[in-house]
Amino acid sequence: MNGYMKALVFQGVQEPLLYREDYPVPTPPEGWTLVRVAYAAINRRDIWIRQGLYAGIKAPCILGSDACGYCEGQRVVINPGLFWGENPEYQSRDFRVLGMPDDGTFADYVAVPRSNIYPAPSHLDDVHAAALPLAGVTAYRALFTRGKLQPQHTVLITGIGGGVAHLAMKMAIAIGAKVYVSSSRPSYIQQAVEEGAAEGVNYRDGDWDKQLKQMCPDGFDLIIDSAGGDAFARLVRLLRYGGRLVTYGGTLGPVNGLSPQVIFWKQLNIVGSTMGSDADFQAMLELVERHRITPDVGKVFPLQQGEEAFQWAWKGGRKKTVLQIR
Amino acid sequence: MNGYMKALVFQGVQEPLLYREDYPVPTPPEGWTLVRVAYAAINRRDIWIRQGLYAGIKAPCILGSDACGYCEGQRVVINPGLFWGENPEYQSRDFRVLGMPDDGTFADYVAVPRSNIYPAPSHLDDVHAAALPLAGVTAYRALFTRGKLQPQHTVLITGIGGGVAHLAMKMAIAIGAKVYVSSSRPSYIQQAVEEGAAEGVNYRDGDWDKQLKQMCPDGFDLIIDSAGGDAFARLVRLLRYGGRLVTYGGTLGPVNGLSPQVIFWKQLNIVGSTMGSDADFQAMLELVERHRITPDVGKVFPLQQGEEAFQWAWKGGRKKTVLQIR
Repeated sequence: MNGYMKALVFQGVQEPLLYREDYPVPTPPEGWTLVRVAYAAINRRDIWIRQGLYAGIKAPCILGSDACGYCEGQRVVINPGLFWGENPEYQSRDFRVLGMPDDGTFADYVAVPRSNIYPAPSHLDDVHAAALPLAGVTAYRALFTRGKLQPQHTVLITGIGGGVAHLAMKMAIAIGAKVYVSSSRPSYIQQAVEEGAAEGVNYRDGDWDKQLKQMCPDGFDLIIDSAGGDAFARLVRLLRYGGRLVTYGGTLGPVNGLSPQVIFWKQLNIVGSTMGSDADFQAMLELVERHRITPDVGKVFPLQQGEEAFQWAWKGGRKKTVLQIR
Repeated sequence: MNGYMKALVFQGVQEPLLYREDYPVPTPPEGWTLVRVAYAAINRRDIWIRQGLYAGIKAPCILGSDACGYCEGQRVVINPGLFWGENPEYQSRDFRVLGMPDDGTFADYVAVPRSNIYPAPSHLDDVHAAALPLAGVTAYRALFTRGKLQPQHTVLITGIGGGVAHLAMKMAIAIGAKVYVSSSRPSYIQQAVEEGAAEGVNYRDGDWDKQLKQMCPDGFDLIIDSAGGDAFARLVRLLRYGGRLVTYGGTLGPVNGLSPQVIFWKQLNIVGSTMGSDADFQAMLELVERHRITPDVGKVFPLQQGEEAFQWAWKGGRKKTVLQIR
């Protein structure tokens, strides 16, 4: 396999993406293989890299962590976490996410380690399978591996407008947990309730935490948060004794006003989670297949319209933006 | 058993302690027993209650959580955590610490549940056995149950001038861990090193965290902290990937400037710990006996000099102040 392919090339921070049809097809090293990409999904990570909000930015490079494609006759998805390593508790020093520094999925072909290839879930078409991997493994690890979610638990998932949060909600509801949500948009809360959430609060309300305390007076077993900021300390107070808060993001910045007394007296656990191990990815696929969970896709663009697709993804909220490549 | 006994009575916040010889000997309810107290130790908790820095203060009451005494011919120590309950992860709603609201150990006799009585460690005399229970179980749970300390770990214990911190240091050194300490007093750091700590930093130095980073460039597996405040966020940055910070106190108040990014990217664990379960107490006694660990005692006062003893305890730093009762 050699020759040229279509690719959407990241040329640098704040630069337009360059659509090319003469990008050299990568030559996979020993232990790697080529995946023929059918569909690829845009993640926040891709957007942040383009805005310069990411460490170690390299250009030119092909972005893209998510894909559904074909490899040796099999329909596959790619685990975008490369070289997690042996320790399930944290990633190795070699760990990196597919799509910078390694060329990613916004191209006809992507080279990945063979061990990162998994059969695509059979209930998902190519478009929806492409939207699953990164958000799926992030949600799975946060909820289960780090959050230790059990069916009898009561869970709060903040910022339900986010793709990971929404997928986490679907997973938690699927196993029978009671799920509460928060959002700044009433329509997202209403939709979450239609999808099986118990209730939700608008975090623009000054008393959102009092509202949650009334809805769930015994406190939450688990809270999944990606905002941080000044709401974080109020979230911690909403945990029950022995409860866990999993943070997988910090869009609102540093945490202030956190009470050590609340943490130690209630024997709380505040733990971080990012991406997931190979075992997390495998377990995520099994859970998604068993419960026929489907990620939401907002719109599909041809690869040539990459720039429009990124605009849409930036504004589009939790529904995935997918690039059609094949 | 009836009649009267010596007791040091807490009359209220900021009130002098009242030494009495005509306090009625308690009548233990079903499942409880009387311990004839030989020595009792003063804890920060007793001091804080007298200063009004504790929830649910009740007076008059006999304070005191720690004792070595005699019960049915056996030399015993008392687990000061009453009614922890069945769940090892957190205390039940019935949980309380001996010495307010229940009458405590600053008296000839104390009534306690039978299940809170344990044989005193054989290598400790009555004075040192009295100084062990509350600090011992707090240190044990923080280090082992919540901190998951292993012999190959590198540990930082802050505020080594504190009684719990110092006992935690002895336990961690005893099992072979590499222990670093911090203190505002150079003499405490020097003494810690003489007792087997690797090194220490003075947290009054503006660059204490840089010093620790140099001493331990790979980061700490475990940090044990009881201060909180603005140093906390800097401690979190000193953890290695997958590391744990256990907080068991918050003398410096709320935590500010904590970075969610550091927590989630390094898959960190920030967990609270207070007191300990019955299993923690039993395991603590076994560890202390196996390694012949001895808590430090600064001075022994007769019960009549309770007020002087409290003055000494307030100023006295990490060495325990013990009341002689028998």
